[in-house]
Amino acid sequence: MTLENKEDVTVLILKFKRAAGLTWEGIAEKIGMSPVWTHSACMGMNAMPKDKAEALVKVLALPQEAALILEESPTKVWEQRVPTDPCIYRLYEIVGVYGPTIKALIHEKFGDGIMSAIDFDMSVTRVENPKGDRVKIEMSGKYLAYNSW
Amino acid sequence: MTLENKEDVTVLILKFKRAAGLTWEGIAEKIGMSPVWTHSACMGMNAMPKDKAEALVKVLALPQEAALILEESPTKVWEQRVPTDPCIYRLYEIVGVYGPTIKALIHEKFGDGIMSAIDFDMSVTRVENPKGDRVKIEMSGKYLAYNSW
Amino acid sequence: MTLENKEDVTVLILKFKRAAGLTWEGIAEKIGMSPVWTHSACMGMNAMPKDKAEALVKVLALPQEAALILEESPTKVWEQRVPTDPCIYRLYEIVGVYGPTIKALIHEKFGDGIMSAIDFDMSVTRVENPKGDRVKIEMSGKYLAYNSW
Amino acid sequence: MTLENKEDVTVLILKFKRAAGLTWEGIAEKIGMSPVWTHSACMGMNAMPKDKAEALVKVLALPQEAALILEESPTKVWEQRVPTDPCIYRLYEIVGVYGPTIKALIHEKFGDGIMSAIDFDMSVTRVENPKGDRVKIEMSGKYLAYNSW
Amino acid sequence: MTLENKEDVTVLILKFKRAAGLTWEGIAEKIGMSPVWTHSACMGMNAMPKDKAEALVKVLALPQEAALILEESPTKVWEQRVPTDPCIYRLYEIVGVYGPTIKALIHEKFGDGIMSAIDFDMSVTRVENPKGDRVKIEMSGKYLAYNSW
Amino acid sequence: MTLENKEDVTVLILKFKRAAGLTWEGIAEKIGMSPVWTHSACMGMNAMPKDKAEALVKVLALPQEAALILEESPTKVWEQRVPTDPCIYRLYEIVGVYGPTIKALIHEKFGDGIMSAIDFDMSVTRVENPKGDRVKIEMSGKYLAYNSW
Amino acid sequence: MTLENKEDVTVLILKFKRAAGLTWEGIAEKIGMSPVWTHSACMGMNAMPKDKAEALVKVLALPQEAALILEESPTKVWEQRVPTDPCIYRLYEIVGVYGPTIKALIHEKFGDGIMSAIDFDMSVTRVENPKGDRVKIEMSGKYLAYNSW
Amino acid sequence: MTLENKEDVTVLILKFKRAAGLTWEGIAEKIGMSPVWTHSACMGMNAMPKDKAEALVKVLALPQEAALILEESPTKVWEQRVPTDPCIYRLYEIVGVYGPTIKALIHEKFGDGIMSAIDFDMSVTRVENPKGDRVKIEMSGKYLAYNSW
Amino acid sequence: MTLENKEDVTVLILKFKRAAGLTWEGIAEKIGMSPVWTHSACMGMNAMPKDKAEALVKVLALPQEAALILEESPTKVWEQRVPTDPCIYRLYEIVGVYGPTIKALIHEKFGDGIMSAIDFDMSVTRVENPKGDRVKIEMSGKYLAYNSW
Amino acid sequence: MTLENKEDVTVLILKFKRAAGLTWEGIAEKIGMSPVWTHSACMGMNAMPKDKAEALVKVLALPQEAALILEESPTKVWEQRVPTDPCIYRLYEIVGVYGPTIKALIHEKFGDGIMSAIDFDMSVTRVENPKGDRVKIEMSGKYLAYNSW
Repeated sequence: MTLENKEDVTVLILKFKRAAGLTWEGIAEKIGMSPVWTHSACMGMNAMPKDKAEALVKVLALPQEAALILEESPTKVWEQRVPTDPCIYRLYEIVGVYGPTIKALIHEKFGDGIMSAIDFDMSVTRVENPKGDRVKIEMSGKYLAYNSW
Repeated sequence: MTLENKEDVTVLILKFKRAAGLTWEGIAEKIGMSPVWTHSACMGMNAMPKDKAEALVKVLALPQEAALILEESPTKVWEQRVPTDPCIYRLYEIVGVYGPTIKALIHEKFGDGIMSAIDFDMSVTRVENPKGDRVKIEMSGKYLAYNSW
Repeated sequence: MTLENKEDVTVLILKFKRAAGLTWEGIAEKIGMSPVWTHSACMGMNAMPKDKAEALVKVLALPQEAALILEESPTKVWEQRVPTDPCIYRLYEIVGVYGPTIKALIHEKFGDGIMSAIDFDMSVTRVENPKGDRVKIEMSGKYLAYNSW
Repeated sequence: MTLENKEDVTVLILKFKRAAGLTWEGIAEKIGMSPVWTHSACMGMNAMPKDKAEALVKVLALPQEAALILEESPTKVWEQRVPTDPCIYRLYEIVGVYGPTIKALIHEKFGDGIMSAIDFDMSVTRVENPKGDRVKIEMSGKYLAYNSW
Repeated sequence: MTLENKEDVTVLILKFKRAAGLTWEGIAEKIGMSPVWTHSACMGMNAMPKDKAEALVKVLALPQEAALILEESPTKVWEQRVPTDPCIYRLYEIVGVYGPTIKALIHEKFGDGIMSAIDFDMSVTRVENPKGDRVKIEMSGKYLAYNSW
Repeated sequence: MTLENKEDVTVLILKFKRAAGLTWEGIAEKIGMSPVWTHSACMGMNAMPKDKAEALVKVLALPQEAALILEESPTKVWEQRVPTDPCIYRLYEIVGVYGPTIKALIHEKFGDGIMSAIDFDMSVTRVENPKGDRVKIEMSGKYLAYNSW
Repeated sequence: MTLENKEDVTVLILKFKRAAGLTWEGIAEKIGMSPVWTHSACMGMNAMPKDKAEALVKVLALPQEAALILEESPTKVWEQRVPTDPCIYRLYEIVGVYGPTIKALIHEKFGDGIMSAIDFDMSVTRVENPKGDRVKIEMSGKYLAYNSW
Repeated sequence: MTLENKEDVTVLILKFKRAAGLTWEGIAEKIGMSPVWTHSACMGMNAMPKDKAEALVKVLALPQEAALILEESPTKVWEQRVPTDPCIYRLYEIVGVYGPTIKALIHEKFGDGIMSAIDFDMSVTRVENPKGDRVKIEMSGKYLAYNSW
Repeated sequence: MTLENKEDVTVLILKFKRAAGLTWEGIAEKIGMSPVWTHSACMGMNAMPKDKAEALVKVLALPQEAALILEESPTKVWEQRVPTDPCIYRLYEIVGVYGPTIKALIHEKFGDGIMSAIDFDMSVTRVENPKGDRVKIEMSGKYLAYNSW
Repeated sequence: MTLENKEDVTVLILKFKRAAGLTWEGIAEKIGMSPVWTHSACMGMNAMPKDKAEALVKVLALPQEAALILEESPTKVWEQRVPTDPCIYRLYEIVGVYGPTIKALIHEKFGDGIMSAIDFDMSVTRVENPKGDRVKIEMSGKYLAYNSW
C-alpha cells in the first residue's frame, strides 16, 4: 500500500491503533501532546511538527513515509451543513444558541475583535458528579483585535 | 408599546441597558446568575425562572408584563447556515474541525452517548497572557447514555 | 471479505437474513430485544451491548469479527433533506405538521424542556380495524429540563 | 380587526387563551376533541368541523366570523429544513434515525404500502417514572396498500 | 452477474428488452398490466405481485432470481430538485403552476382531503389532432379525507 | 384601493367571491371557460383574453381597472422547492415517481420531443366509486418535436 | 469496450476526434449539419436522425453500434447551479441580467407566450472588429402562444 | 414621492409608461437607443449616460431628480436559482444545454478566453415564418483572452 | 429620525454625502484614514475609534448620536452565496480560481498557518496603462501560525 | 499510465515535484513565469502557451504527451459554497466584507465597469515585520467599461 495523502495515513492509524489496542489518550501521552490535538492531527486536520510525526510513526509502527505526510499542511474540509450525528449536533446547537452571547461577552471584555481559531487549544475531560457525570470542554484562543488603517 | 413576545422584550432590554449604562456582567451579578445565561435569556433563547424574571424587571425598570414573557419557553431559532460574522464564525470553524475529535474522546471516556445541550452550562473569561490575552470558553454538559431496549 | 465498518456488517446481515429466511421480529426475539432497536442496530444506527452482538452473530452465523464492530459507537448520518420514499416521507409530514403541537403540549405538561432522543425507545405494531388495519407507533423518551445557571 | 385568514384567527386564539388563563387540554375538553388535534387546528393546520368551530368560538368568545375561517381547508406549510428548536429537532432526529426501521417493519407486517398521514391521529401523554418522568407519543394511521394496474 | 437489488434488475431488463426489440407497451400487454405501471415497476419504483414478476421473467428470459427482487417493496428515491430534462421539467412546470388550482378544486368538490398517490393509477396516450397530435395524461387517485379526533 | 398588479386583483377576487357565495365552477360557467383555467387566471397565473376579463369583472362586480390587469402577461413564479401541503405534495410525488415513465412512453409513442406546457389544457373531476370516490385529473398538451439543424 | 450509453459514445468521439486532428466545424461540415447542433449531439444532448448518426460513424470510424445510441432520445441533465467556468458563467450573467428584458419584448412583439427551446436553432460566429474581434451568438426559436380553455 | 434609488425610478417609469400608452420600442426610438438596452436601464440593470437619462426624463415627464439616479452604477442582482417563469426559464434551458457547446466553439475559433458580458450588446426581433413566426435573439460580445504572466 | 443601529447611520451617511457632493476618497482624507477602511466603516462593517467617529460626524454634519453607533462592534453579515453583481462577482471568481494557489504559496513561504483577515488592511488604486488602465488591489494581513499543544 | 486530462497531469506534477524536491517558486523561475500563474496552470486552472508547457515537461521530466494537455483550455470548476479550509476561507471573508467597498471605489475612480478577471495577474509575497511577518497579495486587472447601445 502506497501512502499518498492524509486520508491514507488516517486509515492506517485507525487500523494499527485497533490492532495495538491503544486509546487516543494513550497515544497522546506517548508522543507528549494533548489527546485533542493528537486525534485531530491523526484525522488529518492538523499538521504535525517533525518530531511528533516521527514519534507517532514509532508508537504505531507506521511505515516511515507516513511521517512526511503527517507534517504537511492539511486542507481542512468540514461539513458546512449541520451534521446529524447526535453527539456532534449538540455542539452546533450550543454554538447556534450561544454564539451571539459569546460574541457579546468577548466585545464587552476585550473590545472589537475575535477569539482566534488558529492560535488555539482545547481539552475534553470527564467530571464526576453524583447526579450523573459531566463532559467538560475547555477552549482557549488568543484575542485578535481588528485593525484600523 | 404592548409587549407581545420575546422579541419585543429583547428590544426593550437593549434600550434600557444602553440608557442605564449597564454591562451584561453587571446585570448578571444583580440578578444572581451567570453572564452567559443572563445574556442568552435576555436574547429570548432561555426561559427565566419567575424570581429571576422579576429581578430583571426591577434592575432595568422594565414594564411588569415583561416578566411573564421572560418566563415563557422559547422557540430557539438559530441560523442553520454557518454565520458570517468573524467572531461567531470562528466558533463554527472550531466545532467543524474538532467535532469528530470531541465525539471520539467522549466515546472513549464515557461509552456510547452524548454531552447534553439541555442540562448544560457555559462561561466566557479573559485570561491574561504576556503574548496577548486569551479568551477562555468552558462548557459543561451532563453525559447521556443511549438506551437499548 | 474483511469486515471494516458497520456498512460492511449491515450488508452481511441483510444477505444472511435473506438466506436464512428470517424476519426482523424473528431475529429480535432470538436476541431478546425489540424489533425496532434490533433493526436499527443492524442498520448501524445503534451500538450493541457485547452479549447482544454475540447473540446476533450466532443467530445469523456471522463471522466472529462482526461482533466487535456491532459494539462500536455509530456515527449517525441521516438525510437532512426530507426523504422522498412515501412511507418515510409521511413520518416527516407528521412531524412537520404536528411538531409545534407536540412542543406546546410538552411545555404545558412538563415545563421548559424536551423529550430525550437518547434515553428513548419505540415500537411499531399492527392494530386490526374493520375499516382497514392501522399502523401504531409508540415513542417514549425521558423528559429533560433546561438548566439555569 | 378584520379576520381574513387562519393566521389572524390563530393570533386571536393565543391572545384570548392567555387572557382567559386556559390550557390546551382545557380547551380541548370543552370542545370535546383531543388536545393534539385541538392545538393543531388552532394553529391553522387542520380544518374544524362546523360544530367544533362554533364550540371554540363560544369557549374563547371569539368573533363569530372566526368560525367560518376555522372550517376552511388549510394550506399546510411547514419548514422543509430541519428546525433548530431543540424540542422539535429531537423529533426529526428520531424520524431521521428510525425512519428506515419503521418502513422495514411496516413492510414486514403489512406488505407494500404506507401509514397514512391523513387518516391519522396522535396523542402526547406524561408517564410517571422514578428515574425521571417520560414523554409518550402515540401515533395511529391507516395502512394504505399501493395499487397495481 | 449476481442480482442484488432493483438497480441490477433494471439494468438487465433494459439490456434484454433492447436485445429482444420489445417496447414497453408490448411487454405490458404480455404480462397483462398497463404500460405506465409496467415501466415504473421495471425501473424499480413499484413492487410486482408474484405472478406478474414471474410473467416478466418469462417474457424477457431474465434469471429466475430476478423475480424475488421484483416483488420487494422499493425505496422510492426521486430528485427533490426540479429535473432539467425538458420532457420531465414540463411536468413540474404544470404541477408548479396548476398545483394550487387542483387543490382548490379538490376541496370544492370533495371537502378537506387529498388525492391519494398510493391508491392511484395513470395512463399516457397519443391523441391525433390535425393541428399536431397531443399527449394525453390521465391520473386517478382515491380521495382521502382528513381525520378529526 | 388602487389596483396595481395581479396580486391586488387576486385578493379582490377572493374577497368578492366569498361575499357572493360563488364557487370556482360557478364562476367558470358564467364566463364560459373551464374551472381549471378560470381559477388559474384568477390566481394571476394565466392572462385573460379581453372578453373573458370583462366577463369576470361583471360576474364579480370588480372595479373596471381590474380587466386591464387580468389581460396582462403574468410572470409565473412557483415554488422550486417541493411544497409541503399534503394535497399539492402528492402531485409532486406522482411526477417524481412517474416522470421518467411518462418520458419513456412519450418517446416510444412520438419520438424525440416533449408534451407542451404552453399549448396545454387540464381538467379535474370527481368519479363516483363504491370503494371511495376518486379524483380524476386529465392533462392534454401538444407534442413538440426537437429540431435538428 | 462495450458502448452502453451516450456517455460512452461521447468519450469515444472525443478520443477519435483528437486522434484524427478534426475540428467541430470540420465534423459538422462532413455530416452536413451545423457546428452547434453537431457538438451538442456528440455531447449526448440531442438525438441524431439515422442518416446523420451513420455519417458520423463513418467520419470518425466509430464502431457501428455507436449509431444506435446516437439516435436515442437523451435525458438532458445540466447544472441547476450557475456554473463557475468563466466562459459559461458569462452566458448565465447575460440571461440573468437580460432575461426579464427579453420576456418584456417578446410579450410586446408577440403577445402572451414564449420562445420555444425545442423548435430551436443557434449559431456561434467570429466577427472581425478593429477594436478586438467579437463573438456573435444567434438564437432562433418558434413563438408558442399560451392556450386558454 | 421622494426618489431614492433605482427601484423607485423603475416604479415611476412603469406607471408613466402605462399612462402614456408607450411601448419599449417607442421609448427606445425616442431616446435613440436600442429596445433591449433601454428596457434594461429602465429596470435599473444598466447605468444611463447623462444625455440619455435626460432624454428619458423628458419622454416620460419624470421628475428631474430621476436623471441623476438613472446615471448611477447599478448593483446588478439577479436570481441565482433558475427562474420559474416559462418565458425566462427557456433561456436558462438553452444556456444549460448549449453552454458547453458555445464554450467549445469559442475556444476553437478564438483560443483560450471568453465572450465579454460587459462590452456586450443584444437584440430581440420577430421573424415571420409560414410555420409560425420565430423569436430571434442576437448577442455580440468582445472576445477577451486570458492573460499569462 | 432616531438613529438605532448601523443601518440607520449608513443611510444618513449616504444621504449627507450625496448632498455635500463628497467622494469616499475626500471623506477618507478629511478623517485621516484610508478610503477602503472609511467606506467599510461607513457601511457598518468596521467599528470606528472614538476620534474617527467624531471626525466623521463633523465632516458630514451628522447628528451627534451617530458617533456612538459608529464606535460599536459590528455584526458582519455578508452574502454566503456568490453575489451576482459583475463587479463583485469577479472578485469571487478570482478567489475561487486562485484560492488554492494562494494557500499553497503561503504554506511554502511561511509554514502551516493563514493570512489574518482581522489584522488586515487593503487599498484600491488606478494604474495608468496605454492598453487600458488597470485596477490594482493590494491586501496585507498578518501571518498567523497554527498552534500545536 | 495514460494521461487523459488535466487532473491526470496535475497528479503527475505533484508526484514528480515531491520526488525532485522542488518548490513552486523554483519551478516558476525555471519556466520563466510567476509562481501564482505557474501553480494555477499546474492545478489545471489556466492554459499554458506551447513553449511554457514544453519547458515544464523538461523541468519535471513529465511524459511528452503532458504538454498537449497543459495547452488545452481548462473548464474552471471551483466551489460555489464558501470553502472551509481556514486559509482559503479568510479570502472569502475579505471579499465578502470588502466586496461592496471595492465596487464603490472602482466606480468612483473609473466609472461604470469592472476589474477584469481574465486580463488579470496576481502575486503573493512575504513582508518582514517586527510585530510578525505579513502576507501581501497584489491583484491587477484591466478596467472594462459597460457598453451602451
